[in-house]
Amino acid sequence: MKIITSPKEVQEFLKYKKNIGFVPTMGALHEGHLSLIKKAREENEIVVVSIFVNPTQFLPGEDLDKYPRRLQADFEICKRAGVDLVFTPNSENMYSEDEILIKAPKIKGYILEGFFRPGHFDGVLQVVNKLFNIVRPNRAYFGKKDAQQLYLIKQMVKNFFFDIEIVECKTVREKDGLALSSRNIYLSEEERKRALTISKALKRAAKLSTNIKDIETIKKEMENILNVDELQYIAFVDRDFNYINEIIPNNTIILIAAKVGETRLIDNIWL
Amino acid sequence: MKIITSPKEVQEFLKYKKNIGFVPTMGALHEGHLSLIKKAREENEIVVVSIFVNPTQFLPGEDLDKYPRRLQADFEICKRAGVDLVFTPNSENMYSEDEILIKAPKIKGYILEGFFRPGHFDGVLQVVNKLFNIVRPNRAYFGKKDAQQLYLIKQMVKNFFFDIEIVECKTVREKDGLALSSRNIYLSEEERKRALTISKALKRAAKLSTNIKDIETIKKEMENILNVDELQYIAFVDRDFNYINEIIPNNTIILIAAKVGETRLIDNIWL
Repeated sequence: MKIITSPKEVQEFLKYKKNIGFVPTMGALHEGHLSLIKKAREENEIVVVSIFVNPTQFLPGEDLDKYPRRLQADFEICKRAGVDLVFTPNSENMYSEDEILIKAPKIKGYILEGFFRPGHFDGVLQVVNKLFNIVRPNRAYFGKKDAQQLYLIKQMVKNFFFDIEIVECKTVREKDGLALSSRNIYLSEEERKRALTISKALKRAAKLSTNIKDIETIKKEMENILNVDELQYIAFVDRDFNYINEIIPNNTIILIAAKVGETRLIDNIWL
Repeated sequence: MKIITSPKEVQEFLKYKKNIGFVPTMGALHEGHLSLIKKAREENEIVVVSIFVNPTQFLPGEDLDKYPRRLQADFEICKRAGVDLVFTPNSENMYSEDEILIKAPKIKGYILEGFFRPGHFDGVLQVVNKLFNIVRPNRAYFGKKDAQQLYLIKQMVKNFFFDIEIVECKTVREKDGLALSSRNIYLSEEERKRALTISKALKRAAKLSTNIKDIETIKKEMENILNVDELQYIAFVDRDFNYINEIIPNNTIILIAAKVGETRLIDNIWL
């Protein structure tokens, strides 16, 4: 397994390679990432994983400094999963002064996650655009857990005419339902228990939606289940992130963002 | 010679092609464009020319509607120059609603041309980014006449990690010195004569600069020569578009922007 820090070296290494699968990550790899890597391994000749805690997608006051970093363990996980190349750039070789910037779309980049983290998606799209040009993959793997990010990356692929297939991968959960996240390690035992009410509320909503189409009724039921410290949103959107008033079968995503203690968690379910 | 309107078809046509030279234009081709095309023809197996009057780089009130369009004549010129593919997209297949946007760098995208045409470079970079991803050229050809645009495109290539060589091509002039521009057709005979003072002032500045390094002295001399209706700027920058106070040999660009009648003209000289 190759480990490369320099973007130019990655471009040289991959220059004549075909059939490249790419999994961009911020490291602290868990079973969720591993499921993306495994899928990429099945579907491509070359598998590239990037590990980069991208500073431009963190807002001032967010957890950039304490975000978990464990590069050696990540390398081990990648090696065992049959990754061909791990790309570990640093801020110095990814960014320069007075950069050309990318702005997330005015509407869908600034609702929900974009409303609570304004500018977050600008940074996400900025780094993913760079990574796509460096790696030039045939397929790139993203989790459905970051549903709005996934939607915006698909829009970037369309708007920027990237010849890349975006593979949507299902959220991996603990046995009790908690969606895997590198941020789960921030939770105390008590907080972790209450965090479980997020996935429970989503599961309950999915069940209700087979009979009830009215969103307000479902939302109330969800609020009864939730035991969080700050509920930021419960939202119902279609696959293109348009708000909807009624459940549309096969075209609804229900999303929750909430703080449990100091930890901000997001989760969703696709109907 | 192929003529294609659809971005997807261009991507298919070029998919397995190697050694692609690309000349992006807004059409109304003149000898300036032709010199880029000829250079591309010499240096590449496949030559692609795009013709697209990109609406997002025109400001409200600018000449988008009256910008010269003569597609049939352009096709003839391309054919005779041995172009392999002319790409003629339209706004509908290049742009969609609520787009992901590109912002020119805060400083160098908003001085000089960017100051007088705020947002112009956002639109230029937006369309060139799309075109680069559609065509994926090995080399792309730009004229030195649009010096700031050339600088910003080189910065985009760097910031976005495009694996593209930007070939800088020298400004083509009429025998009397007037820099070729599709906008020259707007000039009356009398205006055209006065427009000549722009290239004369630049030529004089270049001559003076062999002895005089002080910019203010040179600038005064230039102002004496110029006979325009609105002088927007005379500027002295280095190759990276940092303002300079003294002529730096082999690293100075002197730029002029001025209106003659209603026509806005730009020109420059590289020392």
